[in-house]
Amino acid sequence: MTPNLPLPPNATIGILGGGQLGRMLALAAARLGFDACILTPHEAAPASRVAASSLVAPYDDPVALAELVERCAVITFEFENVPAPVVERLVAAGSCVAPGPLALAVAQDRIAEKSFFISAGVACVPFAQIDRAEDIPAALARLGAPALLKTRREGYDGKGQVWVTHADEAQTAFTSIGGVPAILEGKADFVREVSVIAARSWTGEIAAYPLAENHHENGILRKSVVPAQVSAQTEGQALAISERLLARLDYVGVMGVEMFELSDGRLLVNEIAPRVHNTGHWTLDACEVDQFEQHIRAIAGWPLGPTRPLASAEMINLLGEEALDWQRLAADPGARLWLYGKDGAAPGRKMGHVNRLTGPYPG
Amino acid sequence: MTPNLPLPPNATIGILGGGQLGRMLALAAARLGFDACILTPHEAAPASRVAASSLVAPYDDPVALAELVERCAVITFEFENVPAPVVERLVAAGSCVAPGPLALAVAQDRIAEKSFFISAGVACVPFAQIDRAEDIPAALARLGAPALLKTRREGYDGKGQVWVTHADEAQTAFTSIGGVPAILEGKADFVREVSVIAARSWTGEIAAYPLAENHHENGILRKSVVPAQVSAQTEGQALAISERLLARLDYVGVMGVEMFELSDGRLLVNEIAPRVHNTGHWTLDACEVDQFEQHIRAIAGWPLGPTRPLASAEMINLLGEEALDWQRLAADPGARLWLYGKDGAAPGRKMGHVNRLTGPYPG
Repeated sequence: MTPNLPLPPNATIGILGGGQLGRMLALAAARLGFDACILTPHEAAPASRVAASSLVAPYDDPVALAELVERCAVITFEFENVPAPVVERLVAAGSCVAPGPLALAVAQDRIAEKSFFISAGVACVPFAQIDRAEDIPAALARLGAPALLKTRREGYDGKGQVWVTHADEAQTAFTSIGGVPAILEGKADFVREVSVIAARSWTGEIAAYPLAENHHENGILRKSVVPAQVSAQTEGQALAISERLLARLDYVGVMGVEMFELSDGRLLVNEIAPRVHNTGHWTLDACEVDQFEQHIRAIAGWPLGPTRPLASAEMINLLGEEALDWQRLAADPGARLWLYGKDGAAPGRKMGHVNRLTGPYPG
Repeated sequence: MTPNLPLPPNATIGILGGGQLGRMLALAAARLGFDACILTPHEAAPASRVAASSLVAPYDDPVALAELVERCAVITFEFENVPAPVVERLVAAGSCVAPGPLALAVAQDRIAEKSFFISAGVACVPFAQIDRAEDIPAALARLGAPALLKTRREGYDGKGQVWVTHADEAQTAFTSIGGVPAILEGKADFVREVSVIAARSWTGEIAAYPLAENHHENGILRKSVVPAQVSAQTEGQALAISERLLARLDYVGVMGVEMFELSDGRLLVNEIAPRVHNTGHWTLDACEVDQFEQHIRAIAGWPLGPTRPLASAEMINLLGEEALDWQRLAADPGARLWLYGKDGAAPGRKMGHVNRLTGPYPG
């Protein structure tokens, strides 16, 4: 535990990134009496509009970073693609940054991520490193068709990925993702996608919410349902995997761990997100301490809060123009609406979400 | 309903006042995708630190008010002592202001308030208008001793009030409250203090939370408990009284109605607060839609949300240095902590509050 922790109320927490995750982190920080300072390249970003202060600059702007270090007792981020040199610079300047550079490095590179899973003894889909189109045919033969070609870096919500079925599609597929270093992943024959939202404190304490069952459309999360329809054994296995990953990364904060459940009950880890996670938004209305407050508690060196839900819940994302339906949703007594204050409703863009409490939480 | 309602997300809501109520209103507005603009005389006020923008100026500053009108689709306030000419100026400039000037005028003057109760056929404590110290002895004789001398205007949390027991204390008491126009109130022989937090929409729809039972110390709220230990009949009577007051004022927004329950079950209205109310803070953790979101929904012309609690609850205020106890509270898994980001912990100052869910909500 760094010496300035636990962070006293009225301290300032820095957040790299100004999107909806930063916004909900800033709201949670405010609840506990903290100020938030947002570093974002965008004017009037969703997070900046609820924060005590913001710095509008590129993430690697040295003046802005120095100012952030000066203002903030702890610094965190809302997305995993913060340039590694930025985090290194913050750490070198003596800042308390959580999660740390290791988690970020692992999550930024799909090859590093999968290699980490293997080193941690955690099963994941088979994969191959693809540096050029010519690597694809042999990899496809080994992994079986179809396989999913993804950029090693960047890419989210289904961007930067394409299915490959035949060896003769190699060049087209590689070009379509930008001709950058990539990974080819075998297709998991899963019956269910689930995720664990878990937090780890500076002292190694871990608290996880129950598994969410997730439904994607076109690579974008559509819906999360809690509790997931899995056995108690599978639930326990998923939590054990998550705990192992958090501990191995010496992780501090909330992490999202996406997994596939196979027909035989086995779990394969798909990916980790070193941040609060879309599949944890249901906690905002169904839990006493939601994932955003939990993350703030963790990075601030506060004890983690309870994770048992008050109710079963489901979360549905509002993508693009779906958010224009706000009048109907506002009038629906069962719809707990969250809107992110974004101005442009581009197709597939996450504009908000709706939580519904669906009944008493079982057990 | 004014023509610009219901207010679309991304619109700006103006809030007069920068304290904790404005802060929690701004947080609720953000949840629904609105921007908040705070007008406050104070730099870095608690509400400004979570708002998209703020104007630092006296409440009657014409330039700031013009700017507020320009920026905001709807304007509300977090305290009842906004100067009446300010609200008149906003209305004259074409602003949509809620609650309206009538509710404010009634709540600003204890004589007007009690007269309003009587005109609405709602029982309240007996009272007398006190313009000078010489008015006190006769009033005391009529109301019975002890009686409570209060300034007609301003005054909150027990400030500007003093008990009077004997006629010969008249001058001392009158001087102690500043020698300003006052009211003398008979002592209510109550068994319980309760309050209703109710909202009314532009179209006259009303939604009320269940009664809270309140405990004051030194004139300051210490604790609210829900459900109140009252009969169903008393609960129904309290809600009926509140509905009548809201309708008579053609009120829009959330109002707090404080009442005394007498030993024979009768209710006397003590006072109304034309705003979100400290005795409604328990809704933040125990209800799907809390009083702050409810107020935003009401003034924005959105349908009111459900008011049935998910759990029984109690709320305890953190006054002055009690907030220094944040480490113990942060470690208490049952304590849902809210801190207001205030810097000075003067004695009796409201620094935060703690909600606790105490079990399933009955019925």
